[in-house]
Amino acid sequence: MTIDRERSAARIDGDIEHLATADYTTSSEAIRRYAYTREYRNTLDYFGRELERIGFEVSEDAVGTLVARNRPAGEPAFGVGSHCDSNRNGGKYDGTMGVVTALEVCRLNEELGLGLPLQLISFLEEEGSGFGQMLLGSRLVAQRVTEEDLRERFLATDDGRSFWEHAEEAGYDPARWRDCSHILEGLTGWIEMHIEQARLLQDTDNRIGIVEAIAGYVHADVFVEGRGDHAGATPMDLRLDPALVLAETALELERLARAAGRGTVGTIGEIEVDPGLINAIASRVRFSLDIRGPEDEVFRGVAREIAAFVTRSAGERGMRAEYMERQALAATPMDEGIVSKLEQAAAETGEPYRRMHSGAAHDTMCVADRVPTAMVFVPCKDGISHHPAEHADSADAALAAEIILSAIAALQ
Amino acid sequence: MTIDRERSAARIDGDIEHLATADYTTSSEAIRRYAYTREYRNTLDYFGRELERIGFEVSEDAVGTLVARNRPAGEPAFGVGSHCDSNRNGGKYDGTMGVVTALEVCRLNEELGLGLPLQLISFLEEEGSGFGQMLLGSRLVAQRVTEEDLRERFLATDDGRSFWEHAEEAGYDPARWRDCSHILEGLTGWIEMHIEQARLLQDTDNRIGIVEAIAGYVHADVFVEGRGDHAGATPMDLRLDPALVLAETALELERLARAAGRGTVGTIGEIEVDPGLINAIASRVRFSLDIRGPEDEVFRGVAREIAAFVTRSAGERGMRAEYMERQALAATPMDEGIVSKLEQAAAETGEPYRRMHSGAAHDTMCVADRVPTAMVFVPCKDGISHHPAEHADSADAALAAEIILSAIAALQ
Repeated sequence: MTIDRERSAARIDGDIEHLATADYTTSSEAIRRYAYTREYRNTLDYFGRELERIGFEVSEDAVGTLVARNRPAGEPAFGVGSHCDSNRNGGKYDGTMGVVTALEVCRLNEELGLGLPLQLISFLEEEGSGFGQMLLGSRLVAQRVTEEDLRERFLATDDGRSFWEHAEEAGYDPARWRDCSHILEGLTGWIEMHIEQARLLQDTDNRIGIVEAIAGYVHADVFVEGRGDHAGATPMDLRLDPALVLAETALELERLARAAGRGTVGTIGEIEVDPGLINAIASRVRFSLDIRGPEDEVFRGVAREIAAFVTRSAGERGMRAEYMERQALAATPMDEGIVSKLEQAAAETGEPYRRMHSGAAHDTMCVADRVPTAMVFVPCKDGISHHPAEHADSADAALAAEIILSAIAALQ
Repeated sequence: MTIDRERSAARIDGDIEHLATADYTTSSEAIRRYAYTREYRNTLDYFGRELERIGFEVSEDAVGTLVARNRPAGEPAFGVGSHCDSNRNGGKYDGTMGVVTALEVCRLNEELGLGLPLQLISFLEEEGSGFGQMLLGSRLVAQRVTEEDLRERFLATDDGRSFWEHAEEAGYDPARWRDCSHILEGLTGWIEMHIEQARLLQDTDNRIGIVEAIAGYVHADVFVEGRGDHAGATPMDLRLDPALVLAETALELERLARAAGRGTVGTIGEIEVDPGLINAIASRVRFSLDIRGPEDEVFRGVAREIAAFVTRSAGERGMRAEYMERQALAATPMDEGIVSKLEQAAAETGEPYRRMHSGAAHDTMCVADRVPTAMVFVPCKDGISHHPAEHADSADAALAAEIILSAIAALQ
């Protein structure tokens, strides 16, 4: 199957640019939209209108997840979609291009008369811009939240009021949040297209990434207690400088992640030094660890080794360090049946593609344990994401639409 | 010469405790006093009264430096003193114990009928708590400021108004600031006693430190430009992580300072990571360097080597680093004539003492190029300073008073 890629690219471009106009973002300097704002409502309405135009039945679940089908509820269908909320300082492509490409898949299906049973989903609050909770919409669907979370814990960044209150105010019925799980019923598969948010595809000259697994991760903090002495008056031999434990740990984490290979990465992104004065040896240091990979045993092994290392490094310098895990999530393998069909479809286009894993988290992680799933990535310029400068090519998205459509057709 | 050390210790203790009462600090949780506050005024008045009581002539210069002499102006005298302002979160001893001990030297001189010609000085604003300028009072006396600094640049932390305005409001005549240099005229020598602000004396079981040199220093910032990629999605090989340059530099600075020896120290006390998120590789990092030592060529050599190292470390990782010096100050050697007399006097007491250098800056740095100078340190508990928990022993201060008095007598 081949499509008129230029026409698809133009349509994708049209959607993306339209959704970047003033009605669809609360900021004039970035794309900023999140659940229960007027601009998010406008965005759902835009997709709803476009989908109704091609004969889809459009609905929203109890909290506002957009669901559109070309088959009656209850009948099997193949799922496509992503999210259309944005990071607060976001660009035009993260999430939105996935929904737009899913819409294009639906349009092509109708235009080409393929008759594939499809269901589009646009999850809410993937970015956490509204309530500080990443993947909130898909976690709701996967029932990975509690009623207490929704009623009391998840509070709006803007005004501190609860998710529950905001959902009700927007006309939804959060009391029926357990019904949200029904939207995955009857799905025979799920493919999410997303911009890569990194530079692997660009740096390796590929136009398409076929995701085999979404990395799991360990997020942790390390606290090192030193002794806050005078930087000028304390001889090197009498110091307990926690910044040096940070330094050793950063280099050891790099070494361990490289040695582990297999897509494992490790990052120290947050560093807090107390008191943080030029003329004072730090009394304590906190830093974060972000350790990920597509293979649980491998990245968890790095986390265990670095936890042991910080204790040892601090101990050898006469200090104490504490490693505290914030959160950990297992890797999510994609469905090999769908992956291989995507790969076959990609190969048939003659365009350069590669299998890869996703280092970033995606809504698809919350779909995968109930539905066979896969993801398709397109390059984003210089890996820039969560920033107004984010850019992806609509020609790549059109190519992705063709590949996804072919794969779904082959899976019927 | 021996004194009744217990009586001196009791008097020193009395002064210190009195100056820690509510009239002498603007904070109830710490000693906080700085120029032109009511509490600082009270402190000068206290010293003035005590000095007049033993027959000293007390005056203040054009900006409020306290000067008290037991000889008419113009006649030679030996200088003793320190500063009596405090860090904003200060303790009872930093500076104040030096002035109190100088007062005790003056008292003993009168009581014992030694007839030594003495001049006590209490410099203002050593800590910079009032106007953010360390050693401001002694720099004024040394004429290491400009009129523009005083009129426009040095602004009060509390209200943003200029030093000049505050000085005038307090009844001084800052327009005559150039006359401040006269207070050092006729001084045949200068000894400042101060708490150590570090733990060398405590850790080596000494009661007295005789300072041979005050360390010079280089203060610098290093800026490393990396690339702010996604922590999960960016393979280890495609990263430009500036936190790793920080890590390598911290360990190299430690190595260089240790290798240089001779009292050289190096510290990274400030670290800023941008954007500072657990799931983002930093796009840039800034960190401070504090490199000090009593020998100019040695500590400056470390600064040169680390400046070259950051460029190399960043370059090898495909990044750019910039080293920018904020400020540098040469080491201040003490006068060997005074130092050896102090050592002789210390040896005669039979109490444990050591020669050492001062890693911290002191007002004496601004006296040394016009007057032969030295300093005497006493231990402070666990090296804690600039904190309400600061503690020093009045018995050590009494011992210091005896040694200073003996040394001055021997120098006549």
